[in-house]
Amino acid sequence: GPVGDTDESSRDFDPETQKSLEEIDACQNEIDALNEKASEEILKVEQKYNKLRKPFFEKRNELIKKIPNFWVTAFVNHPQISAVLDEEEEECLHFLTKLEVEEFEDIKSGYRIKFFFDENPYFENDVLIKEFHLGSSGDPASQSTPIKWKEGMDLTKKQKERQSQMKNNRKRPHEHPRTFFSWFTDHGDASADDIAEVIKDDMWPNPLQYFLVPDIEVEENGLEGE
Amino acid sequence: GPVGDTDESSRDFDPETQKSLEEIDACQNEIDALNEKASEEILKVEQKYNKLRKPFFEKRNELIKKIPNFWVTAFVNHPQISAVLDEEEEECLHFLTKLEVEEFEDIKSGYRIKFFFDENPYFENDVLIKEFHLGSSGDPASQSTPIKWKEGMDLTKKQKERQSQMKNNRKRPHEHPRTFFSWFTDHGDASADDIAEVIKDDMWPNPLQYFLVPDIEVEENGLEGE
Ligand SMILES: [Ca+2]
Ligand SMILES: [Ca+2]
Ligand SMILES: [Mg+2]
Ligand SMILES: [Mg+2]
Repeated sequence: GPVGDTDESSRDFDPETQKSLEEIDACQNEIDALNEKASEEILKVEQKYNKLRKPFFEKRNELIKKIPNFWVTAFVNHPQISAVLDEEEEECLHFLTKLEVEEFEDIKSGYRIKFFFDENPYFENDVLIKEFHLGSSGDPASQSTPIKWKEGMDLTKKQKERQSQMKNNRKRPHEHPRTFFSWFTDHGDASADDIAEVIKDDMWPNPLQYFLVPDIEVEENGLEGE
Repeated sequence: GPVGDTDESSRDFDPETQKSLEEIDACQNEIDALNEKASEEILKVEQKYNKLRKPFFEKRNELIKKIPNFWVTAFVNHPQISAVLDEEEEECLHFLTKLEVEEFEDIKSGYRIKFFFDENPYFENDVLIKEFHLGSSGDPASQSTPIKWKEGMDLTKKQKERQSQMKNNRKRPHEHPRTFFSWFTDHGDASADDIAEVIKDDMWPNPLQYFLVPDIEVEENGLEGE
Protein backbone atom coordinates (compact mmCIF):
# COMPACT_ATOMS: atom_id res chain seq x y z
CA GLY A 1 0.00 0.00 0.00
CA PRO A 2 1.03 3.63 -0.47
CA VAL A 3 1.02 4.49 3.24
CA GLY A 4 4.23 4.29 5.24
CA ASP A 5 5.87 1.31 3.57
CA THR A 6 9.11 3.16 2.83
CA ASP A 7 11.94 3.23 5.36
CA GLU A 8 11.91 6.95 5.93
CA SER A 9 8.45 8.43 6.47
CA SER A 10 8.76 11.46 4.23
CA ARG A 11 5.79 13.28 5.77
CA ASP A 12 5.11 13.48 9.47
CA PHE A 13 1.54 12.48 10.21
CA ASP A 14 0.55 12.26 13.84
CA PRO A 15 0.13 8.61 14.98
CA GLU A 16 -3.67 8.79 14.96
CA THR A 17 -3.79 10.13 11.40
CA GLN A 18 -1.20 7.57 10.33
CA LYS A 19 -3.37 4.81 11.76
CA SER A 20 -6.48 6.12 9.97
CA LEU A 21 -4.55 6.36 6.69
CA GLU A 22 -3.49 2.75 7.03
CA GLU A 23 -7.08 1.72 7.68
CA ILE A 24 -8.22 3.70 4.63
CA ASP A 25 -5.55 1.93 2.64
CA ALA A 26 -6.83 -1.46 3.84
CA CYS A 27 -10.38 -0.42 2.88
CA GLN A 28 -9.12 0.66 -0.51
CA ASN A 29 -7.49 -2.74 -1.04
CA GLU A 30 -10.83 -4.44 -0.37
CA ILE A 31 -12.52 -2.12 -2.87
CA ASP A 32 -9.80 -2.82 -5.45
CA ALA A 33 -10.20 -6.57 -4.97
CA LEU A 34 -13.97 -6.26 -5.52
CA ASN A 35 -13.38 -4.17 -8.65
CA GLU A 36 -11.09 -6.91 -9.94
CA LYS A 37 -13.69 -9.61 -9.27
CA ALA A 38 -16.42 -7.51 -10.91
CA SER A 39 -14.28 -7.12 -14.06
CA GLU A 40 -13.69 -10.87 -14.18
CA GLU A 41 -17.40 -11.65 -13.88
CA ILE A 42 -18.32 -9.11 -16.54
CA LEU A 43 -15.68 -10.60 -18.84
CA LYS A 44 -17.23 -14.05 -18.35
CA VAL A 45 -20.67 -12.71 -19.26
CA GLU A 46 -19.23 -11.10 -22.40
CA GLN A 47 -17.46 -14.31 -23.37
CA LYS A 48 -20.62 -16.34 -22.80
CA TYR A 49 -22.65 -14.07 -25.07
CA ASN A 50 -19.92 -13.94 -27.70
CA LYS A 51 -20.29 -17.73 -27.90
CA LEU A 52 -24.10 -17.54 -28.02
CA ARG A 53 -24.04 -14.87 -30.75
CA LYS A 54 -21.51 -16.73 -32.89
CA PRO A 55 -23.88 -19.16 -34.70
CA PHE A 56 -26.15 -16.25 -35.63
CA PHE A 57 -23.23 -14.25 -37.03
CA GLU A 58 -22.22 -17.33 -39.03
CA LYS A 59 -25.73 -17.90 -40.34
CA ARG A 60 -25.93 -14.18 -41.17
CA ASN A 61 -22.71 -14.44 -43.16
CA GLU A 62 -24.04 -17.42 -45.13
CA LEU A 63 -27.21 -15.48 -45.96
CA ILE A 64 -25.23 -12.36 -46.91
CA LYS A 65 -23.27 -14.41 -49.46
CA LYS A 66 -26.49 -14.97 -51.40
CA ILE A 67 -26.99 -11.24 -51.93
CA PRO A 68 -24.91 -9.76 -54.74
CA ASN A 69 -22.68 -6.88 -53.66
CA PHE A 70 -23.99 -6.86 -50.10
CA TRP A 71 -20.75 -5.74 -48.44
CA VAL A 72 -19.66 -3.21 -51.04
CA THR A 73 -23.15 -1.67 -50.86
CA ALA A 74 -23.08 -1.53 -47.06
CA PHE A 75 -19.56 0.00 -47.15
CA VAL A 76 -20.55 2.61 -49.76
CA ASN A 77 -23.60 3.54 -47.69
CA HIS A 78 -21.58 3.96 -44.49
CA PRO A 79 -20.56 7.62 -44.07
CA GLN A 80 -17.14 7.02 -42.49
CA ILE A 81 -16.14 3.98 -44.54
CA SER A 82 -17.26 5.44 -47.87
CA ALA A 83 -15.15 8.50 -47.05
CA VAL A 84 -11.99 6.40 -47.49
CA LEU A 85 -13.15 4.36 -50.51
CA ASP A 86 -11.78 5.56 -53.81
CA GLU A 87 -13.38 4.54 -57.13
CA GLU A 88 -11.09 1.66 -58.00
CA GLU A 89 -11.22 0.32 -54.43
CA GLU A 90 -14.98 0.28 -54.66
CA GLU A 91 -14.61 -1.86 -57.83
CA CYS A 92 -12.27 -4.16 -55.94
CA LEU A 93 -14.68 -4.54 -53.00
CA HIS A 94 -17.27 -6.05 -55.34
CA PHE A 95 -15.20 -9.21 -54.81
CA LEU A 96 -15.55 -9.02 -51.00
CA THR A 97 -17.75 -12.03 -50.12
CA LYS A 98 -17.43 -12.21 -46.35
CA LEU A 99 -16.51 -9.99 -43.42
CA GLU A 100 -15.71 -11.30 -39.97
CA VAL A 101 -14.79 -9.53 -36.74
CA GLU A 102 -13.30 -11.70 -34.00
CA GLU A 103 -12.49 -10.49 -30.52
CA PHE A 104 -9.60 -12.27 -28.83
CA GLU A 105 -10.64 -14.79 -26.19
CA ASP A 106 -9.96 -12.33 -23.34
CA ILE A 107 -11.73 -9.54 -25.34
CA LYS A 108 -9.69 -6.72 -23.81
CA SER A 109 -6.41 -7.61 -25.51
CA GLY A 110 -7.54 -7.10 -29.09
CA TYR A 111 -9.46 -8.16 -32.17
CA ARG A 112 -9.08 -9.00 -35.83
CA ILE A 113 -11.05 -8.02 -38.93
CA LYS A 114 -11.10 -10.58 -41.75
CA PHE A 115 -11.97 -9.69 -45.34
CA PHE A 116 -12.65 -12.71 -47.57
CA PHE A 117 -12.41 -12.22 -51.34
CA ASP A 118 -13.43 -14.11 -54.46
CA GLU A 119 -10.88 -14.64 -57.20
CA ASN A 120 -10.31 -11.12 -58.49
CA PRO A 121 -8.15 -9.11 -60.91
CA TYR A 122 -6.39 -7.20 -58.10
CA PHE A 123 -4.56 -9.60 -55.75
CA GLU A 124 -3.89 -13.27 -55.07
CA ASN A 125 -4.98 -13.39 -51.42
CA ASP A 126 -8.23 -15.10 -50.47
CA VAL A 127 -8.35 -13.35 -47.13
CA LEU A 128 -6.91 -10.08 -45.83
CA ILE A 129 -6.67 -9.71 -42.07
CA LYS A 130 -6.00 -6.62 -39.99
CA GLU A 131 -5.33 -7.43 -36.35
CA PHE A 132 -5.14 -5.18 -33.30
CA HIS A 133 -3.20 -5.91 -30.11
CA LEU A 134 -4.43 -3.51 -27.46
CA GLY A 135 -3.41 -5.31 -24.28
CA SER A 136 -2.15 -3.47 -21.24
CA SER A 137 1.37 -4.84 -21.70
CA GLY A 138 3.22 -2.85 -24.34
CA ASP A 139 1.95 -0.21 -26.72
CA PRO A 140 -1.08 -0.90 -28.89
CA ALA A 141 -0.01 -2.34 -32.22
CA SER A 142 -1.64 -3.52 -35.44
CA GLN A 143 -0.51 -5.77 -38.25
CA SER A 144 -2.06 -6.87 -41.53
CA THR A 145 -1.71 -9.50 -44.21
CA PRO A 146 0.80 -8.50 -46.92
CA ILE A 147 -1.22 -8.00 -50.10
CA LYS A 148 0.04 -9.97 -53.12
CA TRP A 149 -0.97 -7.50 -55.82
CA LYS A 150 -1.25 -8.84 -59.36
CA GLU A 151 0.97 -7.29 -62.07
CA GLY A 152 0.15 -3.61 -62.45
CA MET A 153 -2.81 -3.77 -60.08
CA ASP A 154 -1.31 -2.40 -56.84
CA LEU A 155 -3.97 0.13 -55.82
CA THR A 156 -1.78 1.71 -53.13
CA LYS A 157 0.93 2.41 -55.77
CA LYS A 158 -1.59 3.88 -58.18
CA GLN A 159 -2.84 6.17 -55.45
CA LYS A 160 0.66 7.33 -54.60
CA GLU A 161 1.39 8.03 -58.27
CA ARG A 162 -1.83 9.96 -58.60
CA GLN A 163 -0.99 11.92 -55.46
CA SER A 164 2.52 12.78 -56.62
CA GLN A 165 1.13 13.86 -60.00
CA MET A 166 -1.20 16.16 -58.13
CA LYS A 167 1.82 17.48 -56.27
CA ASN A 168 3.62 18.20 -59.57
CA ASN A 169 0.55 19.94 -60.85
CA ARG A 170 0.88 22.13 -57.77
CA LYS A 171 -2.84 22.24 -57.42
CA ARG A 172 -3.43 20.45 -54.13
CA PRO A 173 0.12 19.90 -52.95
CA HIS A 174 -0.67 18.95 -49.37
CA GLU A 175 -3.51 16.54 -49.98
CA HIS A 176 -2.91 12.94 -48.97
CA PRO A 177 -6.40 11.48 -48.92
CA ARG A 178 -6.80 8.30 -46.93
CA THR A 179 -7.96 5.31 -48.90
CA PHE A 180 -9.22 1.88 -47.90
CA PHE A 181 -5.96 0.07 -48.67
CA SER A 182 -3.78 2.80 -47.19
CA TRP A 183 -5.88 2.33 -44.04
CA PHE A 184 -5.45 -1.46 -44.25
CA THR A 185 -1.66 -1.25 -44.58
CA ASP A 186 -1.15 1.63 -42.13
CA HIS A 187 -0.02 0.82 -38.58
CA GLY A 188 0.81 4.31 -37.38
CA ASP A 189 -1.55 4.51 -34.41
CA ALA A 190 -3.35 1.28 -33.54
CA SER A 191 -4.91 2.87 -30.46
CA ALA A 192 -6.87 5.38 -32.56
CA ASP A 193 -7.84 3.45 -35.70
CA ASP A 194 -11.21 5.03 -36.36
CA ILE A 195 -11.99 2.95 -39.46
CA ALA A 196 -11.30 -0.33 -37.64
CA GLU A 197 -13.48 0.79 -34.74
CA VAL A 198 -16.31 1.75 -37.06
CA ILE A 199 -16.13 -1.67 -38.75
CA LYS A 200 -16.03 -3.47 -35.40
CA ASP A 201 -18.54 -1.44 -33.39
CA ASP A 202 -20.94 -0.15 -36.03
CA MET A 203 -20.80 -2.11 -39.31
CA TRP A 204 -20.30 -5.63 -37.89
CA PRO A 205 -23.07 -5.44 -35.24
CA ASN A 206 -25.68 -4.52 -37.87
CA PRO A 207 -24.65 -4.33 -41.55
CA LEU A 208 -28.23 -4.74 -42.81
CA GLN A 209 -29.08 -1.17 -41.79
CA TYR A 210 -26.27 0.11 -44.03
CA PHE A 211 -27.18 -2.17 -46.93
CA LEU A 212 -30.70 -0.75 -46.75
CA VAL A 213 -29.87 2.76 -45.53
CA PRO A 214 -30.88 4.99 -48.48
CA ASP A 215 -34.36 3.47 -48.45
CA ILE A 216 -34.79 3.81 -44.69
CA GLU A 217 -33.77 7.46 -44.73
CA VAL A 218 -36.26 8.23 -47.47
CA GLU A 219 -39.01 6.56 -45.44
CA GLU A 220 -38.03 8.28 -42.18
CA ASN A 221 -37.96 11.68 -43.81
CA GLY A 222 -41.45 11.00 -45.11
CA LEU A 223 -40.50 11.84 -48.68
CA GLU A 224 -42.30 8.78 -49.96
CA GLY A 225 -45.88 7.64 -49.76
CA GLU A 226 -47.18 10.80 -48.15
CA GLY B 1 -37.81 -5.26 -38.84
CA PRO B 2 -36.52 -2.89 -41.52
CA VAL B 3 -37.22 -5.23 -44.44
CA GLY B 4 -40.47 -4.99 -46.37
CA ASP B 5 -42.79 -4.01 -43.54
CA THR B 6 -44.13 -0.93 -45.31
CA ASP B 7 -47.11 -1.10 -47.63
CA GLU B 8 -45.25 -0.05 -50.75
CA SER B 9 -41.96 -1.84 -51.30
CA SER B 10 -39.81 1.14 -52.18
CA ARG B 11 -36.99 -0.90 -53.74
CA ASP B 12 -37.46 -3.87 -56.03
CA PHE B 13 -35.40 -6.79 -54.82
CA ASP B 14 -35.83 -10.07 -56.65
CA PRO B 15 -37.83 -12.57 -54.56
CA GLU B 16 -34.75 -14.62 -53.64
CA THR B 17 -32.85 -11.57 -52.37
CA GLN B 18 -35.94 -10.36 -50.55
CA LYS B 19 -36.17 -13.75 -48.81
CA SER B 20 -32.50 -13.64 -47.81
CA LEU B 21 -32.89 -10.11 -46.49
CA GLU B 22 -35.79 -11.21 -44.35
CA GLU B 23 -33.74 -14.11 -43.00
CA ILE B 24 -30.85 -11.74 -42.25
CA ASP B 25 -33.31 -9.49 -40.44
CA ALA B 26 -34.51 -12.47 -38.35
CA CYS B 27 -30.88 -13.34 -37.54
CA GLN B 28 -30.27 -9.73 -36.59
CA ASN B 29 -33.25 -9.81 -34.22
CA GLU B 30 -31.76 -12.86 -32.47
CA ILE B 31 -28.42 -11.05 -32.15
CA ASP B 32 -30.18 -7.94 -30.80
CA ALA B 33 -32.06 -10.04 -28.22
CA LEU B 34 -28.77 -11.61 -27.07
CA ASN B 35 -27.18 -8.15 -26.81
CA GLU B 36 -30.09 -7.08 -24.66
CA LYS B 37 -29.72 -10.10 -22.38
CA ALA B 38 -25.97 -9.57 -22.12
CA SER B 39 -26.52 -5.94 -21.05
CA GLU B 40 -29.01 -7.06 -18.42
CA GLU B 41 -26.62 -9.65 -16.97
CA ILE B 42 -23.74 -7.18 -16.91
CA LEU B 43 -25.99 -4.68 -15.15
CA LYS B 44 -26.81 -7.30 -12.51
CA VAL B 45 -23.11 -7.97 -11.92
CA GLU B 46 -22.47 -4.23 -11.56
CA GLN B 47 -25.37 -3.87 -9.14
CA LYS B 48 -24.17 -6.83 -7.09
CA TYR B 49 -20.68 -5.37 -6.74
CA ASN B 50 -22.03 -1.90 -6.01
CA LYS B 51 -23.78 -3.50 -3.02
CA LEU B 52 -20.65 -5.41 -1.98
CA ARG B 53 -18.47 -2.29 -2.23
CA LYS B 54 -20.89 -0.07 -0.31
CA PRO B 55 -19.90 -1.02 3.28
CA PHE B 56 -16.23 -0.41 2.41
CA PHE B 57 -17.03 3.02 0.98
CA GLU B 58 -18.99 3.80 4.15
CA LYS B 59 -16.19 2.63 6.41
CA ARG B 60 -13.74 4.62 4.29
CA ASN B 61 -15.85 7.76 4.74
CA GLU B 62 -15.93 7.27 8.52
CA LEU B 63 -12.13 6.95 8.58
CA ILE B 64 -11.68 9.97 6.31
CA LYS B 65 -13.65 12.10 8.76
CA LYS B 66 -10.91 11.52 11.34
CA ILE B 67 -8.30 13.15 9.10
CA PRO B 68 -8.33 16.96 9.15
CA ASN B 69 -8.75 18.53 5.72
CA PHE B 70 -8.70 15.20 3.90
CA TRP B 71 -11.08 16.19 1.09
CA VAL B 72 -9.79 19.71 0.51
CA THR B 73 -6.25 18.29 0.33
CA ALA B 74 -7.28 15.59 -2.13
CA PHE B 75 -9.14 18.18 -4.26
CA VAL B 76 -6.20 20.60 -4.25
CA ASN B 77 -3.87 17.78 -5.28
CA HIS B 78 -6.08 16.69 -8.16
CA PRO B 79 -4.95 18.40 -11.39
CA GLN B 80 -8.40 18.87 -12.97
CA ILE B 81 -10.32 19.71 -9.79
CA SER B 82 -7.71 22.14 -8.47
CA ALA B 83 -7.88 23.91 -11.84
CA VAL B 84 -11.40 25.12 -10.98
CA LEU B 85 -10.77 25.91 -7.28
CA ASP B 86 -10.25 29.55 -6.54
CA GLU B 87 -8.65 30.70 -3.28
CA GLU B 88 -11.82 31.46 -1.34
CA GLU B 89 -13.46 28.24 -2.51
CA GLU B 90 -10.48 26.33 -1.20
CA GLU B 91 -11.08 28.02 2.18
CA CYS B 92 -14.72 27.00 1.99
CA LEU B 93 -13.87 23.36 1.17
CA HIS B 94 -12.04 23.08 4.51
CA PHE B 95 -15.57 22.55 5.85
CA LEU B 96 -16.26 19.64 3.48
CA THR B 97 -16.47 16.59 5.79
CA LYS B 98 -17.86 13.91 3.52
CA LEU B 99 -18.14 13.14 -0.18
CA GLU B 100 -20.46 10.50 -1.60
CA VAL B 101 -21.08 9.34 -5.15
CA GLU B 102 -24.22 7.27 -5.70
CA GLU B 103 -25.15 5.63 -8.98
CA PHE B 104 -28.89 5.29 -9.56
CA GLU B 105 -30.21 1.76 -9.03
CA ASP B 106 -30.17 1.00 -12.79
CA ILE B 107 -26.67 2.61 -13.07
CA LYS B 108 -27.12 3.73 -16.70
CA SER B 109 -29.70 6.41 -15.98
CA GLY B 110 -27.54 8.64 -13.81
CA TYR B 111 -25.77 9.43 -10.57
CA ARG B 112 -25.52 12.02 -7.83
CA ILE B 113 -22.56 13.59 -6.04
CA LYS B 114 -23.17 14.62 -2.43
CA PHE B 115 -21.00 17.15 -0.60
CA PHE B 116 -21.54 17.22 3.19
CA PHE B 117 -20.39 20.33 5.08
CA ASP B 118 -19.78 21.32 8.68
CA GLU B 119 -21.32 24.54 9.99
CA ASN B 120 -19.43 27.18 8.02
CA PRO B 121 -19.32 30.95 7.40
CA TYR B 122 -20.39 30.60 3.73
CA PHE B 123 -23.82 28.92 3.50
CA GLU B 124 -26.61 27.34 5.54
CA ASN B 125 -26.83 24.00 3.71
CA ASP B 126 -25.50 20.85 5.36
CA VAL B 127 -25.36 18.99 2.08
CA LEU B 128 -25.03 20.13 -1.52
CA ILE B 129 -26.06 17.63 -4.18
CA LYS B 130 -25.42 17.68 -7.92
CA GLU B 131 -27.42 15.05 -9.76
CA PHE B 132 -27.16 13.80 -13.35
CA HIS B 133 -29.96 12.21 -15.36
CA LEU B 134 -28.40 10.53 -18.34
CA GLY B 135 -31.11 8.04 -19.31
CA SER B 136 -31.92 7.20 -22.91
CA SER B 137 -35.29 8.95 -22.68
CA GLY B 138 -34.88 12.67 -23.06
CA ASP B 139 -31.75 14.79 -23.15
CA PRO B 140 -29.14 14.47 -20.40
CA ALA B 141 -29.86 16.94 -17.63
CA SER B 142 -28.37 17.95 -14.29
CA GLN B 143 -29.72 19.74 -11.27
CA SER B 144 -28.23 20.88 -7.97
CA THR B 145 -29.21 22.02 -4.51
CA PRO B 146 -29.86 25.77 -4.35
CA ILE B 147 -27.12 27.20 -2.13
CA LYS B 148 -28.35 29.34 0.76
CA TRP B 149 -25.45 31.78 0.94
CA LYS B 150 -24.99 33.69 4.16
CA GLU B 151 -25.10 37.52 4.02
CA GLY B 152 -22.28 38.82 1.81
CA MET B 153 -20.73 35.36 1.37
CA ASP B 154 -22.04 34.35 -2.07
CA LEU B 155 -18.83 33.15 -3.72
CA THR B 156 -20.40 32.99 -7.20
CA LYS B 157 -21.38 36.70 -6.92
CA LYS B 158 -17.91 37.67 -5.75
CA GLN B 159 -16.42 35.85 -8.70
CA LYS B 160 -18.72 37.61 -11.17
CA GLU B 161 -17.85 40.99 -9.67
CA ARG B 162 -14.16 40.21 -9.88
CA GLN B 163 -14.58 39.12 -13.48
CA SER B 164 -16.48 42.24 -14.48
CA GLN B 165 -13.82 44.41 -12.79
CA MET B 166 -11.22 42.62 -14.87
CA LYS B 167 -13.35 43.39 -17.93
CA ASN B 168 -13.38 47.07 -17.03
CA ASN B 169 -9.64 47.01 -16.57
CA ARG B 170 -9.51 45.75 -20.16
CA LYS B 171 -6.64 43.52 -19.30
CA ARG B 172 -8.12 40.09 -19.79
CA PRO B 173 -11.49 40.97 -21.26
CA HIS B 174 -12.42 37.49 -22.48
CA GLU B 175 -11.47 35.51 -19.42
CA HIS B 176 -14.29 33.72 -17.62
CA PRO B 177 -12.44 31.22 -15.47
CA ARG B 178 -14.49 28.29 -14.28
CA THR B 179 -14.74 27.91 -10.54
CA PHE B 180 -15.97 25.14 -8.27
CA PHE B 181 -19.30 26.76 -7.46
CA SER B 182 -19.89 27.95 -11.02
CA TRP B 183 -19.40 24.29 -12.00
CA PHE B 184 -21.79 23.18 -9.23
CA THR B 185 -24.54 25.58 -10.33
CA ASP B 186 -24.02 25.20 -14.09
CA HIS B 187 -26.33 22.86 -16.01
CA GLY B 188 -25.38 23.83 -19.54
CA ASP B 189 -24.23 20.43 -20.80
CA ALA B 190 -24.87 17.53 -18.45
CA SER B 191 -23.62 15.02 -21.03
CA ALA B 192 -20.11 16.50 -20.97
CA ASP B 193 -19.56 17.51 -17.35
CA ASP B 194 -15.84 16.80 -17.09
CA ILE B 195 -15.56 17.83 -13.42
CA ALA B 196 -18.43 15.57 -12.36
CA GLU B 197 -16.90 12.68 -14.31
CA VAL B 198 -13.51 13.23 -12.72
CA ILE B 199 -15.09 13.21 -9.26
CA LYS B 200 -17.12 10.07 -10.03
CA ASP B 201 -14.57 8.03 -11.99
CA ASP B 202 -11.24 9.19 -10.58
CA MET B 203 -11.54 10.89 -7.16
CA TRP B 204 -14.28 8.72 -5.63
CA PRO B 205 -12.75 5.33 -6.58
CA ASN B 206 -9.47 6.21 -4.84
CA PRO B 207 -9.14 9.56 -3.02
CA LEU B 208 -6.22 8.36 -0.88
CA GLN B 209 -3.84 8.57 -3.84
CA TYR B 210 -4.70 12.28 -4.22
CA PHE B 211 -4.47 13.01 -0.49
CA LEU B 212 -0.96 11.53 -0.59
CA VAL B 213 0.04 12.50 -4.12
CA PRO B 214 2.84 15.08 -3.60
CA ASP B 215 4.75 12.65 -1.42
CA ILE B 216 4.36 9.76 -3.83
CA GLU B 217 5.60 11.83 -6.73
CA VAL B 218 8.70 12.91 -4.86
CA GLU B 219 9.44 9.29 -4.00
CA GLU B 220 8.86 8.08 -7.55
CA ASN B 221 11.16 10.71 -8.97
CA GLY B 222 13.84 9.55 -6.54
CA LEU B 223 14.47 13.05 -5.24
CA GLU B 224 14.39 11.89 -1.65
CA GLY B 225 16.41 9.36 0.30
CA GLU B 226 18.88 8.61 -2.48
CA1 LIG C 1 -6.77 -16.91 -54.77
CA1 LIG D 1 -26.41 24.14 8.85
MG1 LIG E 1 -19.98 -9.92 -54.22
MG1 LIG F 1 -12.32 19.33 7.52
